[in-house]
Amino acid sequence: MSSVYEESLALHKLHKGKLEIHSKVAVERMEDLALAYSPGVAQPCREIVDDEENAYVYTNKGNTIAIVTDGSAVLGLGDIGAKAALPVMEGKAVLFKRFADIDAIPLCIDVHDAEGIITLVKALEPTFAGILMEDISAPKCVAIERTLKAEMNIPVFHDDQHGTAIITIAAIANMLRLTGKKKEDLRVVTCGVGAAGSSIIKMMHDFGIRHIEAFSSKGQMHQEKKAQYDFLKQELLQYVDQDGLRFDTMADAMVGADVFIGVSAPGLVNKDMVASMNEKSCVLAMANPTPEIMPEDALAAGAYIVGTGRSDYPNQVNNVLAFPGLFRGVLDVKATKITEGMKMAAAMALADLISDEELDPEHIIPTVFDPRVAPAVAKAVAACAKKEGNVR
Amino acid sequence: MSSVYEESLALHKLHKGKLEIHSKVAVERMEDLALAYSPGVAQPCREIVDDEENAYVYTNKGNTIAIVTDGSAVLGLGDIGAKAALPVMEGKAVLFKRFADIDAIPLCIDVHDAEGIITLVKALEPTFAGILMEDISAPKCVAIERTLKAEMNIPVFHDDQHGTAIITIAAIANMLRLTGKKKEDLRVVTCGVGAAGSSIIKMMHDFGIRHIEAFSSKGQMHQEKKAQYDFLKQELLQYVDQDGLRFDTMADAMVGADVFIGVSAPGLVNKDMVASMNEKSCVLAMANPTPEIMPEDALAAGAYIVGTGRSDYPNQVNNVLAFPGLFRGVLDVKATKITEGMKMAAAMALADLISDEELDPEHIIPTVFDPRVAPAVAKAVAACAKKEGNVR
Repeated sequence: MSSVYEESLALHKLHKGKLEIHSKVAVERMEDLALAYSPGVAQPCREIVDDEENAYVYTNKGNTIAIVTDGSAVLGLGDIGAKAALPVMEGKAVLFKRFADIDAIPLCIDVHDAEGIITLVKALEPTFAGILMEDISAPKCVAIERTLKAEMNIPVFHDDQHGTAIITIAAIANMLRLTGKKKEDLRVVTCGVGAAGSSIIKMMHDFGIRHIEAFSSKGQMHQEKKAQYDFLKQELLQYVDQDGLRFDTMADAMVGADVFIGVSAPGLVNKDMVASMNEKSCVLAMANPTPEIMPEDALAAGAYIVGTGRSDYPNQVNNVLAFPGLFRGVLDVKATKITEGMKMAAAMALADLISDEELDPEHIIPTVFDPRVAPAVAKAVAACAKKEGNVR
Repeated sequence: MSSVYEESLALHKLHKGKLEIHSKVAVERMEDLALAYSPGVAQPCREIVDDEENAYVYTNKGNTIAIVTDGSAVLGLGDIGAKAALPVMEGKAVLFKRFADIDAIPLCIDVHDAEGIITLVKALEPTFAGILMEDISAPKCVAIERTLKAEMNIPVFHDDQHGTAIITIAAIANMLRLTGKKKEDLRVVTCGVGAAGSSIIKMMHDFGIRHIEAFSSKGQMHQEKKAQYDFLKQELLQYVDQDGLRFDTMADAMVGADVFIGVSAPGLVNKDMVASMNEKSCVLAMANPTPEIMPEDALAAGAYIVGTGRSDYPNQVNNVLAFPGLFRGVLDVKATKITEGMKMAAAMALADLISDEELDPEHIIPTVFDPRVAPAVAKAVAACAKKEGNVR
């Protein structure tokens, strides 16, 4: 077992997990009990009966979100089930508290069909101001999120889909600043069309990128394969294969491409493939923990910008850049939903944090501990929500 | 609005509720992130895949319970719904933390049929080491609790039913010590056969009390009315009306009775009724916030021992005497269920805390802030669970 795993295990054992509840009120005398609990507590209850929005005034609902998973697609571990997903969800809650002072509750649920998950999450609305879906497998995660967004009056966000997409767009935006390339001319090859890949593809299209080729373990995605696809992949055909090109291999597609985006598996890209890309190429190899190609290899092969999910290389595409600030903004203005516009606002805020002086191939996105990140994202998201009118 | 309500409202508004999440681990450097989250967190996940009991080692599951309500029977407020119940559930969580260092998560759920609540709560098992049901209306609360107890591998406890019952039995046990009466001779009249009343009646029977008459808004409960009753009241006929006596009114039944137990509504008992009871009578008038008879009136009418739910009179029957210690014991030994034996052990531990020197009519049960309470209850419950073999 490598050192990081051993140390992590020891840390988790020492503290018996990573979260605890803290009371914001003292209960040391009968008078305290009468205010925090019976009989005084009846009054905030009555105020909420009169106007349910008072839950945001008299309870912690307004700062509380649920992190919901069925454990079907956890990290790179796959379908490990709800129980085994708990360490990850506790970790996510730690990050919410650390980076955005949000109280996030892990809920690892032992129900795995889309309908059951939808029913359960909808029933949680009285308690929470938002729902973060996490590590739920594709394509059901997309169907679940869509239904919840349509049927709930609090924001719902599936981080695996949109978190990585927001940071990827920020990275591409700054790559454009750095290289002077134009987004409408960019040729992008993506590898992986699961939760993250599909959202990245859609968000790139919304951003204005028109030449996208997508690959999965079944090869190039294109129109003639439509009948074989699930609903999610069928939808992606609106955004990929717009040039009618056909490639036998991903290597063929990468010849002359400006951007490679990997959310797939280790080692799928080699030096020759990178070397064949256009000048000032950008390789975002985000498979975790081992990327599609290691940064040193990509750079040696001529890549101009390289990003990965790893903390030990520059340009770490880490979702923690997005979700804490995004939800902070959402909660600050009591947003009722998270829209495409709000996600794009988060991406642009991330990109804009890098000044012209800071911008270079090793700094196209902020670092995780940059204290400007969450406030900047929150501010942009909140402003967008207000402008769109999606607030309580 | 009375002062306690005004002050409670101000307190709730000041803090925006009463709970927050606290992280047990620091995240200040990339190394911290790698241990608390990816990639290190994969290792505790793998350990739980190998053996699900490792969730108790590497996560906070073992100290975390859910407080679940649909808001259908909140305090004396009735069916106010899930949203408006949140202040009470946050209060309960505050008490769990304060008195037993347990991390309790309020889950106010917008599903109200027994089947729906059962499905939802069962799905939460991966996240929690126990379930506290709270403020769910009778009789469905009983059906829900039974199904959950049968079908879940973590303890489930409906506080409204059993919390008050445990303390009532403790009070009766010490009344027996104080008066020298014998439990098999006691004549008890109960008023109220909802969640609390039904559990009190059953637990009194288990304790060895044989002469119980129960009253509801529909008069005396007796065998001839069986066909009118729901399943819960039908079951209670095993424990009440064992002497075949018939009473036109509760006042008639109270003549010569040793104990009156009220879990009903204000003002249902008058001085004449108390005056007609046996010598050294015990009146536990627990309607909240206004009891069936005020203590000064009961004492003036000749009651020997008086208890209420109020903090401004002696002998406060407050569930906080039971649930924190009970769950502390349960969690300490990873109990898989809460049995009748464990509830009785909690009651006896509460009674035994009052030494012979302390015991007098104004001190038949411990006070809420007595620091011995939760540890003593926890110890007794844990020992009973181990003895019965209901531990992981």
